[in-house]
Amino acid sequence: MKPRIVESVDEMSAIRRKMQGVIGFVPTMGFLHEGHLSLVREAKKKTDIVIVSIFVNPTQFGVNEDLSEYPRNIERDIKLLSNLEVDYLFLPTNEQMYPEDYKTWINVEEITQVLCGRSRPIHFKGVTTIVTKMMNIVVPDMMFMGEKDFQQLVVLKQMTKDLNYRTKVVGCPIVREKDGLALSSRNKYLTKVGRRNALCLQKSLLLAQKLFNEKIISSEKIISQISNLIGKSEGIVDYIEVINPQTLEHISQLTKGCRIALAVIIENTRLIDNIEIV
Amino acid sequence: MKPRIVESVDEMSAIRRKMQGVIGFVPTMGFLHEGHLSLVREAKKKTDIVIVSIFVNPTQFGVNEDLSEYPRNIERDIKLLSNLEVDYLFLPTNEQMYPEDYKTWINVEEITQVLCGRSRPIHFKGVTTIVTKMMNIVVPDMMFMGEKDFQQLVVLKQMTKDLNYRTKVVGCPIVREKDGLALSSRNKYLTKVGRRNALCLQKSLLLAQKLFNEKIISSEKIISQISNLIGKSEGIVDYIEVINPQTLEHISQLTKGCRIALAVIIENTRLIDNIEIV
Repeated sequence: MKPRIVESVDEMSAIRRKMQGVIGFVPTMGFLHEGHLSLVREAKKKTDIVIVSIFVNPTQFGVNEDLSEYPRNIERDIKLLSNLEVDYLFLPTNEQMYPEDYKTWINVEEITQVLCGRSRPIHFKGVTTIVTKMMNIVVPDMMFMGEKDFQQLVVLKQMTKDLNYRTKVVGCPIVREKDGLALSSRNKYLTKVGRRNALCLQKSLLLAQKLFNEKIISSEKIISQISNLIGKSEGIVDYIEVINPQTLEHISQLTKGCRIALAVIIENTRLIDNIEIV
Repeated sequence: MKPRIVESVDEMSAIRRKMQGVIGFVPTMGFLHEGHLSLVREAKKKTDIVIVSIFVNPTQFGVNEDLSEYPRNIERDIKLLSNLEVDYLFLPTNEQMYPEDYKTWINVEEITQVLCGRSRPIHFKGVTTIVTKMMNIVVPDMMFMGEKDFQQLVVLKQMTKDLNYRTKVVGCPIVREKDGLALSSRNKYLTKVGRRNALCLQKSLLLAQKLFNEKIISSEKIISQISNLIGKSEGIVDYIEVINPQTLEHISQLTKGCRIALAVIIENTRLIDNIEIV
């Protein structure tokens, strides 16, 4: 069954006020893939009513980023959500979300300035602002986010806690292609060669786990080996970091439960991935 | 009847989830006076359940401001609220509102940088952040604020609109002493002489209205006359501005509906007042 499509903020807000039961929310920028769908399935499992939003949020893109080319296919998205029996699809317009006199921004300090925040300085301010707005319209009991955008997940958990939202932010595992590439709408930008080279992201994370299993725990050594591997695949490293998964602080020796996160540019496309060391 | 006193954020949030009807909210920093009580009365009139908060929000005070001396009298406050039959008094602690790892701030651009924002650069960031937190805990249908803090009212209206809160922000008229001084917890700091000199704030606003009635509409001329009057009362002008009441932008000629806002330092105490020109 097709989800009910809601394009007006006021209508979504009014519908929400009449809802009963546990509300699940999956915010997306559309061009849905199995990663998004895994979040929807989790929401269907854990909540009574599932609302998915599709909104390509302009304020989280830097001026030199890919806002205008960001892939869109709303008809296909609706079909995919219909298959999963999503209840509501919220499709607000830019003009509604950011009217001309718009002035309010959310800023999470420190943890938005590291990792992806270094090369994308305004990105998380856009993310936290749009998610706050969405949460105030949709008022979800649970919000489902992928672990691929690990920093985003940590930032939004911090924000909802700091601002006393009742919404529980649920992180869901990374979904990968059969060959290991983490699903991303941006994979579409890659040529055949780039697509093959992009496998270096997960390969290097698996290498890190292998080295850890062999008792090599120096972050420096492991990062250096990852760097080599990525270089061989013609990837340009944006960052490779071993981090504390709560604070995102750099740690110098791997331990169980730490994360390795990386961002790599393959043919002008910036891809990210991460792994929990176990 | 004494209001039910709630000191825990989680408890307030849990109580709110079970409430039915229209919820009115009056956020305060305590040391209540007739200005606050007029807000409570308006809330009692317009809503089914009234929640008042008392929290001296540290993040809206600059380092050289009066956080430590800010007057407090919780026992008296409780009595006053009992007389008005307030339903809930929310009294969270600093530690709950701003735990050690706190990182999230709300920023409303432009309109927080003018008027009081110039001499109190971090003030509104603290205000918008604490009010967002309070709104997420209390989830009010209507929130009542005094027009004495006119810029605060405009900033919070902008913020709730921008962030898609359902809460209606209701501005209530300034309450004054018999001699015209606008009520403020900070009036307490004044000596007898200062108290008398402080009358220059309202006097100068009434002078502006009188000049406007006499067809003098140049903001420059009116501000200059106000300056003289304040100087004679040993007041130090922080600002005197003729503004558009929605955008807070400076306007050069008075019109009906414009506001004149001013901040004046009387004996080290910074007092504010404003008037709508009619």
